[in-house]
Amino acid sequence: MIDLQDSRNEIDKVDKEIVRLFEYRMKLAQDVAEFKIQTGKKVFDKEREVEKLTALKALAGNEFNRHGISELFQQIMSMSRKMQYSLIKEKDTGIPFEKVTALPVDTSTKVVWFGAKGSYTEQAFKQYFGEEVKAFNVSTFKEVMEKVKDKSADYGVLPIENTSTGGITDIYDLLVEYENSIMGEHILKVNHALLGLPQSELKDIKKVYSHNQGILQCQKFLEANPQIEAIVCESTADGAKRIVSEGDITQAAIAGVQTAKLYGLKILRENVNHECNNSTRFIIIGRNKQYKQDAKKISICFELPHESGSLYNMLSHFIYNNLNMTKIESRPLEGKTFEYRFFVDFEGNLEDAGVRNALFGIKEEAITLKILGNY
Amino acid sequence: MIDLQDSRNEIDKVDKEIVRLFEYRMKLAQDVAEFKIQTGKKVFDKEREVEKLTALKALAGNEFNRHGISELFQQIMSMSRKMQYSLIKEKDTGIPFEKVTALPVDTSTKVVWFGAKGSYTEQAFKQYFGEEVKAFNVSTFKEVMEKVKDKSADYGVLPIENTSTGGITDIYDLLVEYENSIMGEHILKVNHALLGLPQSELKDIKKVYSHNQGILQCQKFLEANPQIEAIVCESTADGAKRIVSEGDITQAAIAGVQTAKLYGLKILRENVNHECNNSTRFIIIGRNKQYKQDAKKISICFELPHESGSLYNMLSHFIYNNLNMTKIESRPLEGKTFEYRFFVDFEGNLEDAGVRNALFGIKEEAITLKILGNY
Repeated sequence: MIDLQDSRNEIDKVDKEIVRLFEYRMKLAQDVAEFKIQTGKKVFDKEREVEKLTALKALAGNEFNRHGISELFQQIMSMSRKMQYSLIKEKDTGIPFEKVTALPVDTSTKVVWFGAKGSYTEQAFKQYFGEEVKAFNVSTFKEVMEKVKDKSADYGVLPIENTSTGGITDIYDLLVEYENSIMGEHILKVNHALLGLPQSELKDIKKVYSHNQGILQCQKFLEANPQIEAIVCESTADGAKRIVSEGDITQAAIAGVQTAKLYGLKILRENVNHECNNSTRFIIIGRNKQYKQDAKKISICFELPHESGSLYNMLSHFIYNNLNMTKIESRPLEGKTFEYRFFVDFEGNLEDAGVRNALFGIKEEAITLKILGNY
Repeated sequence: MIDLQDSRNEIDKVDKEIVRLFEYRMKLAQDVAEFKIQTGKKVFDKEREVEKLTALKALAGNEFNRHGISELFQQIMSMSRKMQYSLIKEKDTGIPFEKVTALPVDTSTKVVWFGAKGSYTEQAFKQYFGEEVKAFNVSTFKEVMEKVKDKSADYGVLPIENTSTGGITDIYDLLVEYENSIMGEHILKVNHALLGLPQSELKDIKKVYSHNQGILQCQKFLEANPQIEAIVCESTADGAKRIVSEGDITQAAIAGVQTAKLYGLKILRENVNHECNNSTRFIIIGRNKQYKQDAKKISICFELPHESGSLYNMLSHFIYNNLNMTKIESRPLEGKTFEYRFFVDFEGNLEDAGVRNALFGIKEEAITLKILGNY
C-alpha cells in the first residue's frame, strides 16, 4: 500500500506547478488580446479553439483523461476569453442594448397594464410608477405587448411569476414573439379573498369566478369545498364585475380585498390562497432596448439543438464566467416533441466582461439567443 | 506589437505541460483512491479540498487569477473524485435504491390511475401496462400517491408534463411530499376535440367543461370564441360525463375523441388544442426504491440556500461529471419568497461513477436532495 502523505505531498507539488503554468498562460493570452485589439480581430476564434482541443486530447493516455483534458481546456480557454473581453472596454460588443442612467418616466409617460380595475396588476403598476403617469388597461397579455409595440404606450405591466403556481407560461412565449424588452420588475404580496354580494353567505356559494392563476392558487380551498364550481375569467377583477352584474347570491369571485371595496362586494373568506406567503412578480416592458447602468439582473432565452450535451455545454458558459443564475426554466418548444427553449435569469450587467463572454459563447452554440432585458 | 504566432507557440508549449501534469495528477489520485478503498475512508474529503483551494488561491498574483485557480482546481478535484468513485464498484454508495433487472409486473399487479374512464391517463396506462393487470381509477393526483403508499396499488399513473403548457406543478409537489418513486415514463400524443350532445351544433355551445390543463391547451380556441365560458373539472372525462348527465345542448366538453365514443358524444370540432404536436408525458410511480439496470434517466429535486452562487455551484456537479441535463425547472418554495426548489432530469444510471460523484457533491451542498427515480 502506498503512503497517503507521500502521495498528497506529490499532488501538492504538481498543483503548484499547474498554478504557475496557468498564470503564465494568462499572461500570454493577454499579449494575444492586445494584438487582437490592435488588429481588430475577434476574441472568440472558434476554429482555433477546436483545433487546440483536438491536438491536446490526442496527447492523453486513456479515455478518461481524454475527456478530462477536453473539459479542462474548454474552461481554461473560456477564462482566457473572459480576460480578453475585459480588456476591450466599451467596444462594439454586438449586444443591441443601449445604456441609460435612468428609465425615462415623466407626467407624459403612458403605461398600459393587464386586467380590470381593482386587479393585482393595477396595484403593482401604481406601486411602481406612482399615480402621476397616464395609464390605461387592456384585457389580455397580448394586447399589453401590442400597445407597447405600436407606441400607444411607453411601458407595459404584466405578471410573470407567482410563488405558489410558478411561471406564467404565456408571458414567456410573448417575450419571445415580441421585440419588447424587460426594463424593470416589481414584487407584490398577493392575498386572495372570496368575495360575494352584500347579502351572500359562504354557505350560499355554488360558483366562483377568477383568473386561471387565481383558481390554481386556491386549489386547496376548492378541493375542500367540492360544492363550488370554478369558472375561468380573463382577470380576477373581471370575475368580481361579473358577479355584480349578474346579482346572483350563489356566485362569488376570488380576488384581492381591494377589489371588494372597488365593486362594493363582501369578503366571505380571507386568505383562500393555500400559501400564506403568496407573492407575484410583475415585469415592466418597454419598446426600446435599453438598460440602466446599475441594472443587476439579465433575462435571456435560448433554444438548443436536440443533441446530447447541448444544455450541458450551454450552462458551462455561466459557470466558467462565474455568473449566478437565479432562475432557470425549460419550456417545451411548440410543435416539437420535448425539445426545449430555456429561460434563464442571472445576476449581472451587460457591461461586465464575464456577461459578454457568456453571451458570446451561448450565441455561438445555441440555435437562437434572445436577450430579454437587463434591469 | 508582439508576434501572434510566437505567443501561440508558447501557449501550445504551456498547454502540453499542463496535460502532462494533469495525467500525472490523475495517477497520484488513483494511488490515493486505492489507499482509501483499503482503509475504508470516504472519497469525498471536503475539509481537505477546502484547505487545498485556500492554499492554491494564495499563490495567485492577482484577483482574476485567484478566481480562475479556484475554478480550475474545483474542476480538477471533481475529476479526481469521479475517477476514484469509478474504482469503488458496487460498494455502498449511500444511495437508497436497489437495482432490478425488470419491474415486477404480472396478472396480480394492481395499477391506480388518475381521472375518469375515457381520459388520456387511462389510454397512457393501457399502452404502458397492457390490458392484463388489475386497475382502478381515482379522482385526484393525491389519491394516486396515497393508494400506492398504502399498498392498495403497486403502481400509479400520473400526467407530469405537456408540450404546450409545460410541467404540471402539482405533481412535482406531490413527488416531494411522498416517498413513492418514479419507475417509468410514457409519452402520449394528445388531440383535444370539442364534444357535444348528439343534437348539439358548434354554434349552440355556451359552456365548455374540461380539466384546467385541457382549458389551457385550448386557450387560443377559447379566445377566438369569447361566447364560450370555460369551467374547470377534475378531469377531461369528468367534463364529458357532466354534459351527458345534464343533457343541455349549450354545453360541451374538451376531451379526446376516444371519450366521445365512450360517452356517446358528438365531435363538434377536432384539434381544438392550439398546437398540432401536443403530447403529454406520464410517469409511472411505485412504492419501492428500485431502478432497472438499463434505466437511462434520473430525476432529482434539491433545495438551495439563498446565497449568491448556490445554483452555480450546484450545476457544476453536472458539468464536471459530463452529465447531460434534459430538463431543469425551478419552483418557488412554498412559504418563502423567491427561494427555489429545483427539479432536474439528466441522463444516466445510479451505477455510473459520474452520477454517484454528482449526487454526492450535490448532497454535500444542497439543503435537501431527493432522488425521485431512475427509469
